[in-house]
Amino acid sequence: MSGNTFGKLFTVTTFGESHGPALGAIVDGCPPGLPLCEADLQRDLDRRRPGTSRHTTQRREPDRVKILSGVFEGVTTGTPIGLLIENTDQRSKDYSDIKDQFRPAHADYSYHHKYGRRDYRGGGRSSARETAMRVAAGAIAKQYLAAQGISVRGYMSQLGPIAIDFKSWEAVEENAFFCPDPDRVAELEAYMDQLRRDQDSVGAKISVVAEGLPPGLGEPVFDRLDAELAHGLMSINAVKGVEIGDGFAAVSQRGSEHRDEMTPQGFLSNHAGGVLGGISSGQPLIAHLALKPTSSITTPGRSIDVHGQPVEVVTKGRHDPCVGIRATPIAEAMMALTLMDHLLRHRAQNAEVSVETPVLR
Amino acid sequence: MSGNTFGKLFTVTTFGESHGPALGAIVDGCPPGLPLCEADLQRDLDRRRPGTSRHTTQRREPDRVKILSGVFEGVTTGTPIGLLIENTDQRSKDYSDIKDQFRPAHADYSYHHKYGRRDYRGGGRSSARETAMRVAAGAIAKQYLAAQGISVRGYMSQLGPIAIDFKSWEAVEENAFFCPDPDRVAELEAYMDQLRRDQDSVGAKISVVAEGLPPGLGEPVFDRLDAELAHGLMSINAVKGVEIGDGFAAVSQRGSEHRDEMTPQGFLSNHAGGVLGGISSGQPLIAHLALKPTSSITTPGRSIDVHGQPVEVVTKGRHDPCVGIRATPIAEAMMALTLMDHLLRHRAQNAEVSVETPVLR
Amino acid sequence: MSGNTFGKLFTVTTFGESHGPALGAIVDGCPPGLPLCEADLQRDLDRRRPGTSRHTTQRREPDRVKILSGVFEGVTTGTPIGLLIENTDQRSKDYSDIKDQFRPAHADYSYHHKYGRRDYRGGGRSSARETAMRVAAGAIAKQYLAAQGISVRGYMSQLGPIAIDFKSWEAVEENAFFCPDPDRVAELEAYMDQLRRDQDSVGAKISVVAEGLPPGLGEPVFDRLDAELAHGLMSINAVKGVEIGDGFAAVSQRGSEHRDEMTPQGFLSNHAGGVLGGISSGQPLIAHLALKPTSSITTPGRSIDVHGQPVEVVTKGRHDPCVGIRATPIAEAMMALTLMDHLLRHRAQNAEVSVETPVLR
Amino acid sequence: MSGNTFGKLFTVTTFGESHGPALGAIVDGCPPGLPLCEADLQRDLDRRRPGTSRHTTQRREPDRVKILSGVFEGVTTGTPIGLLIENTDQRSKDYSDIKDQFRPAHADYSYHHKYGRRDYRGGGRSSARETAMRVAAGAIAKQYLAAQGISVRGYMSQLGPIAIDFKSWEAVEENAFFCPDPDRVAELEAYMDQLRRDQDSVGAKISVVAEGLPPGLGEPVFDRLDAELAHGLMSINAVKGVEIGDGFAAVSQRGSEHRDEMTPQGFLSNHAGGVLGGISSGQPLIAHLALKPTSSITTPGRSIDVHGQPVEVVTKGRHDPCVGIRATPIAEAMMALTLMDHLLRHRAQNAEVSVETPVLR
Repeated sequence: MSGNTFGKLFTVTTFGESHGPALGAIVDGCPPGLPLCEADLQRDLDRRRPGTSRHTTQRREPDRVKILSGVFEGVTTGTPIGLLIENTDQRSKDYSDIKDQFRPAHADYSYHHKYGRRDYRGGGRSSARETAMRVAAGAIAKQYLAAQGISVRGYMSQLGPIAIDFKSWEAVEENAFFCPDPDRVAELEAYMDQLRRDQDSVGAKISVVAEGLPPGLGEPVFDRLDAELAHGLMSINAVKGVEIGDGFAAVSQRGSEHRDEMTPQGFLSNHAGGVLGGISSGQPLIAHLALKPTSSITTPGRSIDVHGQPVEVVTKGRHDPCVGIRATPIAEAMMALTLMDHLLRHRAQNAEVSVETPVLR
Repeated sequence: MSGNTFGKLFTVTTFGESHGPALGAIVDGCPPGLPLCEADLQRDLDRRRPGTSRHTTQRREPDRVKILSGVFEGVTTGTPIGLLIENTDQRSKDYSDIKDQFRPAHADYSYHHKYGRRDYRGGGRSSARETAMRVAAGAIAKQYLAAQGISVRGYMSQLGPIAIDFKSWEAVEENAFFCPDPDRVAELEAYMDQLRRDQDSVGAKISVVAEGLPPGLGEPVFDRLDAELAHGLMSINAVKGVEIGDGFAAVSQRGSEHRDEMTPQGFLSNHAGGVLGGISSGQPLIAHLALKPTSSITTPGRSIDVHGQPVEVVTKGRHDPCVGIRATPIAEAMMALTLMDHLLRHRAQNAEVSVETPVLR
Repeated sequence: MSGNTFGKLFTVTTFGESHGPALGAIVDGCPPGLPLCEADLQRDLDRRRPGTSRHTTQRREPDRVKILSGVFEGVTTGTPIGLLIENTDQRSKDYSDIKDQFRPAHADYSYHHKYGRRDYRGGGRSSARETAMRVAAGAIAKQYLAAQGISVRGYMSQLGPIAIDFKSWEAVEENAFFCPDPDRVAELEAYMDQLRRDQDSVGAKISVVAEGLPPGLGEPVFDRLDAELAHGLMSINAVKGVEIGDGFAAVSQRGSEHRDEMTPQGFLSNHAGGVLGGISSGQPLIAHLALKPTSSITTPGRSIDVHGQPVEVVTKGRHDPCVGIRATPIAEAMMALTLMDHLLRHRAQNAEVSVETPVLR
Repeated sequence: MSGNTFGKLFTVTTFGESHGPALGAIVDGCPPGLPLCEADLQRDLDRRRPGTSRHTTQRREPDRVKILSGVFEGVTTGTPIGLLIENTDQRSKDYSDIKDQFRPAHADYSYHHKYGRRDYRGGGRSSARETAMRVAAGAIAKQYLAAQGISVRGYMSQLGPIAIDFKSWEAVEENAFFCPDPDRVAELEAYMDQLRRDQDSVGAKISVVAEGLPPGLGEPVFDRLDAELAHGLMSINAVKGVEIGDGFAAVSQRGSEHRDEMTPQGFLSNHAGGVLGGISSGQPLIAHLALKPTSSITTPGRSIDVHGQPVEVVTKGRHDPCVGIRATPIAEAMMALTLMDHLLRHRAQNAEVSVETPVLR
């Protein structure tokens, strides 16, 4: 039990259900002296926020975050940071038709079997709404990392069948898809419009990159940087796969191709994605994640109810036809939280690193 | 720091370098009353052991494991189980040519930057030799799970460019590749022979499956079963990607295709790979992992030394041209350890699960 | 860092400063199905509340707790329980005279050296106000334990020089001191009145007892029940000593006197205080704790300021002349949290205990 | 479960039964670059070793420790340190008379109820023999702390009814009691001789002091330095009480007496024992612990067997009549481990401590 904490030294513990009074988090372990205010968190929350385009759920939550502790006179004090977001748009409605049904491919069935009961309103704790607190906590980590010269940024690299090449970070922030190529946005819009007409949903692939990392982050053998990152990314709702660097493409590569050679001027390639032996190499850290198509669609599906009787389920309500569209800030948050934790763990070690080599990027 | 422990209630802590006197582990949290002897662990160690075919490293280690505590009169007592494997084939040789070099794409560079020093003999702690203790500890978990009717088995699903369909579990144990299709073994042999002639290495894909799981394992939101499994699998040397169920294929699937419908007779498909909302559904738990081609090849590569000077590196010694060939028992071990930990965590919860539905497989 | 979590399976993470907007906690790991409402928590909060008698601080906080998640339709769901208490009586006042001073024997000095800064308003995080969330979380543990037939109760066993013998649990709740002997209350009142006239403070001793425990709780060797209990009790503000059973009296006892003999009818004594080898024996679990006199007194004291200059400090404001008076519910909370965690950990173990002996009480 | 690990960043995990083949430990998180060899550990093991005087058990174990990993070319590498001590004097004898009996006040009864079985040979895991690995691991921590100018030393402050004032650290090492006053040793010898004739045992009090600590160690609110120290000390076999600084004497002190005033030249007293608000103040850290008289005496005692039948128990074999005599190195080890963990945790925090005041000792 008690699986609601992420991290070891920089820990985030969250609570909150989709239709409860509030979501909250405690961020413990933030070093003192970091300038921080609510606006620093709000920025990423707004990037994740639902209802900002016609391609995401029409639930309209302002997601206004409050800092309740741990910040004094504009800087962190080293004590735990309490965060709170009140739910304001949890419409009271009649749930009697779904409370005894298991939506296919949804957490209803597994929650029921795990806990013997569940908060069925809007998915309760299994709702992606929970990720709002990850984004808020991740923004604190990002703020700290940025002060160390480390950036964490993500983009959509595939929407359903449409693969997207990276063009620029500027483009990413200029459309609702976090699409890094402005010339592809129209295509994505058209695809989504058709998808809605089809009453269906689709998967997506997100890529996340950290730059400016020092070499040395990651704790072999089990708490490798890539292993902890995979943990964090796979813990995001709907994620079914995680790759570091070349990922599954490495299966058919040869060693002479995959190995990243080094010269005094730096690495000649980055197939590894910035991790060697579970420890950051100083190169950009690169991860990709696969998000499944949401199961909440209006096309009827076969299922059963809690009495084992067959039912036909139609998921109404306000749902994202592609949960991947809003996943970029969440993926960034999980990468930032992972890096922050490992930065602190590495410091504890106090290695007197007598490195004669330049850090190679 | 201190990243050498896996699990929360069923914990495995390991130590040992490739060329030190011994490898060891402490398995803490094993319930009392489990019949256990050294032969139970040796079986999987022998499956992983090097030198069993011409396609793996010619290092010849008997890998004889000793149980030093925690077992009395043939059964576990509930106290920690100490495990030890003495290294016997750590040839003393002259390391002066490699001690100051960073082999490309190897952990040399990152260990050097993390710790300021490293045991360069045979890779030290970063050697895959470390995984022997995972296999030994995993065998304890497997033994316990088997008594609950839960099996954990793996196979090679791709070797370099050669994808392999699953045919039978019997076939898996009858060849050195853990290949599930006896008709493909000759092809794999030929590929490996050519690879050695090319002085190169190649990647591989392994698949692992647990059957007989109860629904309810996994602790949302961060300690989801799939997230912890991804952590465990990604912590294996050379792993660059992890998928649950359909994995990256889900990116281009539609919700109407991906969602696993249910009838009173059971699930109609298993795209999810046995996990819904981070909790086991009772269906088979399915994961795939991508292993990169080893960087230890005899084809010369460009690199630098600790003084930042360019060097040409040729990795001699006894190395696996495809580390994926011996990875199946390791992947099984990490899945078994993950499941064991979550089985115990779930029990702690003591949910009075008044489940009216049959568990659907 | 990140020392704001207590427990391993039943975890409590708290945040909040004395004069911030709110205090909060996340209780993670509570089994599903426990009936719970805010009134269940409020009862103990009211017992701890300041301003209820003239012998405690005159700060008047209603300490009204809100449950923000984890409870649905009147019972816990197994998901994390978010708790919040808003601070309402954090008077805005001028702190300019104390912000650069270190009050003698207070956390000012050590916080300043640890974090390089501190929230000086009312002691910030080091204020005993933080313990309100312990009491709220502890009430959840108590509720669960009570359903298992386990009670956790405490009383004041010494106020300054006045030792108090236990008479009855009923008496404890009928006076502001948690004094178990109604005939001694007047004496305590008189002592406190004189203490206030002396502008001084005094220490106290609290005793806590759990009854109805099953044998078997506690995890040797480091996470012994008594060791974890000592951890919890010593983490309460102002506590300087912890005893289990006979405690320091055991130093001068002989083995023939101290050992608790057993007959088929039960143990003949309880010098051990309910723990043998770090594991509960089924007898009452008994602990005592020593609280120091608060350093916040109006008698001037010598100290220094942040510039190292000598200053004379007089602590004004609303302070408890004996912090021990309100400590009983806090000590109960920490014992309850410790027991709850170990109850769940024990369950995970799933020992098939084939106990032929009756549990001896 | 899995309670055999101590620490969070500098972790010690132990295994081993009294009469099994070996004891072992894994020390994880030791920073790289510390000079370390087996002799550094052996020194403290020899101080704890049984059979060195007629006042301790006559079991004769050389307790020869081996370092199996984590040290290369004479210094630590940052990877886990494996430790092993083989048991050589676990006499095979006939246990049939005690295997079904519960020795009074011993862990037999609670282990039986916890695990449903137990290794009854010599107490199995509950034997104080387990503490050998604590001492070995603690010696690593001591070595590291010493390099930072921090010493950890202990002494016997009371043997049964005989209280002993501290005279000198030199005296401590010159007698079998760790008695700090050479003039009292004869008295202790005489007391012990009489105790043996009485076929009885007695308790003891040990004091431990760390000097040279920086201010700032300890993580409020739950992982306070004093709370974690209490945890560590209370986890030692036979310990029934822990005090920090004045401990229980603080109960009857007044605030004007207890508070440690400060001047620019330093603190004027140290009633607090070196901890303020759970954080080290830079003053000497002082703790006292009470050890009970061992229950293993040859005077017959009433008990029951596993069938609930009354039995008379006489504990034969080789036992310490005062387990406190050998407890000093163990208490030092637990304090050193606690400090080491908190030193690393504090470093992770990276506070830019702009301390204008001199550190006051």
